[in-house]
Amino acid sequence: MLVVRNISEICTGPVGPTSLNGELPITRHRKSAIGIEGDTIAWIRDDDPNNWPTDADVIDANRGCVIPGLIDCHTHTVFAGTREDEYVQRAQGLSYAEIARRGGGIKNTVDAVRKCSVDELVELALPRLQRMLALGVTTVEIKSGYGLTVEDELKMLRAAKRLGELQPIEIVGTYLAAHTIPREFDGDGDAYLDIVLDRKVLDQIRAEGLAEFADVFCEATAFNVEQSRRFLTTCADAGLTPRIHADQITQIGASKLAAKVGASSADHLERIDDESIQAMRDAGTVAVLLPACSFYLGVEQAPARRIVDAGLPVAIATDFNPGSSVVESLPLTMSIACSQMGMTPVQTLVATTANAAAVLKRESKVGAIKEGMQADLTILDVPTIEQMCYFAGRNCTRTVIKKGRTV
Amino acid sequence: MLVVRNISEICTGPVGPTSLNGELPITRHRKSAIGIEGDTIAWIRDDDPNNWPTDADVIDANRGCVIPGLIDCHTHTVFAGTREDEYVQRAQGLSYAEIARRGGGIKNTVDAVRKCSVDELVELALPRLQRMLALGVTTVEIKSGYGLTVEDELKMLRAAKRLGELQPIEIVGTYLAAHTIPREFDGDGDAYLDIVLDRKVLDQIRAEGLAEFADVFCEATAFNVEQSRRFLTTCADAGLTPRIHADQITQIGASKLAAKVGASSADHLERIDDESIQAMRDAGTVAVLLPACSFYLGVEQAPARRIVDAGLPVAIATDFNPGSSVVESLPLTMSIACSQMGMTPVQTLVATTANAAAVLKRESKVGAIKEGMQADLTILDVPTIEQMCYFAGRNCTRTVIKKGRTV
Repeated sequence: MLVVRNISEICTGPVGPTSLNGELPITRHRKSAIGIEGDTIAWIRDDDPNNWPTDADVIDANRGCVIPGLIDCHTHTVFAGTREDEYVQRAQGLSYAEIARRGGGIKNTVDAVRKCSVDELVELALPRLQRMLALGVTTVEIKSGYGLTVEDELKMLRAAKRLGELQPIEIVGTYLAAHTIPREFDGDGDAYLDIVLDRKVLDQIRAEGLAEFADVFCEATAFNVEQSRRFLTTCADAGLTPRIHADQITQIGASKLAAKVGASSADHLERIDDESIQAMRDAGTVAVLLPACSFYLGVEQAPARRIVDAGLPVAIATDFNPGSSVVESLPLTMSIACSQMGMTPVQTLVATTANAAAVLKRESKVGAIKEGMQADLTILDVPTIEQMCYFAGRNCTRTVIKKGRTV
Repeated sequence: MLVVRNISEICTGPVGPTSLNGELPITRHRKSAIGIEGDTIAWIRDDDPNNWPTDADVIDANRGCVIPGLIDCHTHTVFAGTREDEYVQRAQGLSYAEIARRGGGIKNTVDAVRKCSVDELVELALPRLQRMLALGVTTVEIKSGYGLTVEDELKMLRAAKRLGELQPIEIVGTYLAAHTIPREFDGDGDAYLDIVLDRKVLDQIRAEGLAEFADVFCEATAFNVEQSRRFLTTCADAGLTPRIHADQITQIGASKLAAKVGASSADHLERIDDESIQAMRDAGTVAVLLPACSFYLGVEQAPARRIVDAGLPVAIATDFNPGSSVVESLPLTMSIACSQMGMTPVQTLVATTANAAAVLKRESKVGAIKEGMQADLTILDVPTIEQMCYFAGRNCTRTVIKKGRTV
């Protein structure tokens, strides 16, 4: 048995998708210890040595706060190459469209990824995940989407799966073949979808356990609503749960589509309207907000307060990728949400634990500190979750426990 | 002799205050090594072992970029207490004025600082400086301003001086007794200034070597222009170089005052106008921008591009303090300047090295990699300064050399 004691407070979030517009949705246990048996939380009891066996391994939290292991539910952590040239061009005032015209954008990363083997992609991504783990993140979703051929998309997903075997963070794979229309198809999205929606491909993804989710970039410059519907429903038929990049640059009905196809989430939402918020709430689709992306691009944030106030559950993720959000840190992303979106630290905690777990269909296993749930815990060197967000950009993580083991 | 070799590129900045509106103001040495003798840079030569003695200590930079040790020229690193309650209130939509009415703001920190001894202040600040050092920062300015009595202001400066003796970062003290009017004086700034401008106090500050600079918060809610002029000129007579918190919330002529009194810098400048930019340029007063502060408060940034384009040299600093910029990381602050102010990575590097050194009157000693200058170097784990800013919020520092020693 492993016991974590001398804790300032344990923040036990709710279980399952939670609206953030009411009472503070966390409980703070101030004089308790946590008992762990194997990979499972066995109990939360008074911090008294009579409550555990004398031979238990004891971790002294040194009056730090304990939170559920953080969950980054939207990332593009598998990639090759860097795009700092675009970053400099943006700082100099070039628009995204002009940068794309000069050969920048996703397609640059596609070229680099296509040249890599699975092993090379794994080698590049491993230190990224090690840094995320050191920041208290214990579950990370990783999307494909920089291959844009069947072979290269599967290669990316295989890299993601391998990464899950090589280090402690649990990896959740998402098939994002519909990230953009590859240049070989000259704008013909339907012809491209014919290839990547081949039933044999989808069945292989399921057979190899490469992905649980399908995702599409539904946007004026990528796939339209009808193409996105086709992609997501075909993938759903093959067992992949729909998600969607929605309402980022223009409002074309992408988040409404998310509600219609029963997506677990619609992500981005910088341009969401009230009607779509209602539709998502009624459908049980979680809103995934990506504050580090808007911060990084220097553009307007999604209307977080409006979404929260409407009672639609909100998750937060880094959107870590080599172009629009080169931000690995989920804690920094939480601070950005507090400073630039008007979310409170407690709201950002639920958004990166219970609600992020719900997006990934793992809410009964991770995202809360509760008897019977998996023992994924982050021990902070500050006494409250408020201080963690308040110290923006500083790593306040002291110890990370994944599946009951200190990592 | 110490030699740093196997470097991707050495970014040697300019020496002295440099306008950022022309040619890239750095040189990139791509096949060179750096020789260090004692605490001084001895040479930059081709990376060839024939160029150094066989018994030299050699540091392999592993193809990382080498930059001058970073200089944080505006911080409030000595403080006590935390103010995360205000942070939560701001996230909930409360205005700064309303928070102050409820008892928030600087005065909270003043209460906490007054209760501390020098030793306690040192103990609180030491880990902050250790984290800054790990981020590649080798010189830090620290202001008083949370004491607001003669005794408590001197206590803060003594803590700052002690910190300089206890760890490798060089500390530069600034007398900011005119940070706000303490509540005991009920808005009577002149009466308060009578106390803190006592010539005996100023002479003692110089005699003990506690500060080289004087600073005032010139703002509608703090000290007016006339009071600020009095504070700075009286301090200047006693040997303290003027600096000023200017044009942050309202435009009352603070940065023009900076130019008139020959201040080394005017800092903040969110509300600066073109006339003041010209006046500062003509006077040789550097513009210190604080992008982490506006980021943290979620308010508009200073017009960096306009200031840069006008040819006024710009420095960047964290403004690290427990209220409006709880951001210790100067590299993150550089990334914020790129994403939210339209500055390029190279501009932010000069702004945190040569120009920051000029603000602190140390431009002939630190802030550039040049023969004869002090050997303050930061070795990155990325090959270019562009990548350092591009990887926002990630610590890209591998090794720090201060005064010729690995620290």
